Amino acid sequence: MSHGVVPAEVARAARGGLAPVARWLHAVGITANAITVAGVALTIVGAALLVVGQPGAALAVLVVGALADTLDGAIARAAGGGTRFGAFLDSTADRLADAAIFSAAAALGASQGDPILFWAAMVALSASFLVSYVRAKAESLGAVATVGPAPREARLVIVLAGVAGWAILALPPLFVAAVAAVALLSTLTLIQRVVAVAAALQTKSDR
Amino acid sequence: MSHGVVPAEVARAARGGLAPVARWLHAVGITANAITVAGVALTIVGAALLVVGQPGAALAVLVVGALADTLDGAIARAAGGGTRFGAFLDSTADRLADAAIFSAAAALGASQGDPILFWAAMVALSASFLVSYVRAKAESLGAVATVGPAPREARLVIVLAGVAGWAILALPPLFVAAVAAVALLSTLTLIQRVVAVAAALQTKSDR
Repeated sequence: MSHGVVPAEVARAARGGLAPVARWLHAVGITANAITVAGVALTIVGAALLVVGQPGAALAVLVVGALADTLDGAIARAAGGGTRFGAFLDSTADRLADAAIFSAAAALGASQGDPILFWAAMVALSASFLVSYVRAKAESLGAVATVGPAPREARLVIVLAGVAGWAILALPPLFVAAVAAVALLSTLTLIQRVVAVAAALQTKSDR
Repeated sequence: MSHGVVPAEVARAARGGLAPVARWLHAVGITANAITVAGVALTIVGAALLVVGQPGAALAVLVVGALADTLDGAIARAAGGGTRFGAFLDSTADRLADAAIFSAAAALGASQGDPILFWAAMVALSASFLVSYVRAKAESLGAVATVGPAPREARLVIVLAGVAGWAILALPPLFVAAVAAVALLSTLTLIQRVVAVAAALQTKSDR
């Protein structure tokens, strides 16, 4: 699978490093679906910490949530393969996690009277959702739409980098820039996917 | 198809009344996809009118946008059936229209310092998207998830009633109540759909 701005080698290395952890969690009886739910719960807590202006604590919680999000697939593989419900739950949890993070960014923009952060967050939320929706809808109609520079892994890495810039370098504008970058890349990805689906599906003449 | 809080007879009557209009538009060469794009463009304009505090103009534009949204399907039927790309475009445009309306509500909540409107709008936006996403994702995995009281027609009717309450009765709290109602009903619908998909997909044991 394409990871957009995240190099494939980095994604592979992260998965390789997590594999022993996943095998151990599987051995002690922790299911992939439990980790999926824990991951989205942690992300919602992290988003709430952003809203109350605690970027350091938010970063720590969000990184653990993101690792859980990668672990669930690894546990499913350690268990010999995932279930269809596991795939559905994972995808739905990812959308909920995106909603929490960008809602938090919008709330920050609103409370700080920063229209750039507010609107960047609204566009990032809507376009991120649409990128995933377009893919699922295309698949339900028998087409494929996975192109574009901003699949979920890329969006997550950019946002976490922005939170790190705010928390570690004490530069809140880096968080605003990260949200704006996700808004831009997601919109481009959305357009690419709609065009790809148009090419794949428009076999009958347009009526 | 279920229309939730909109009685089936009302939905049927609306479609029946629009059929001659649809046949005429088809006869003069206007395509379903053109009406889909016009409908979402009108909805975005209507949402922008809400943000700048013009509920009367917003109501007029949003109602025309909603009619266009119903007309596209009728034109496709008048043309002898829709294309798969038409179905894809229609669904994607609906999500974009929802994003515009609830982003406008969130912006109003932010600019008026009304946390209830802001958070109701964020939940309505995210839950509406998730309701549609869960259905598309379930279909891509071979399951069906169409249950619940808040499919798109119901959400649209509730929001338009709220805008009408604000514009015609000069009662802005009716708009806040409508957005809050959509947030609540969408969240309930989301939970119902996830449960329905769990029942349909969890044939293999949970690993």
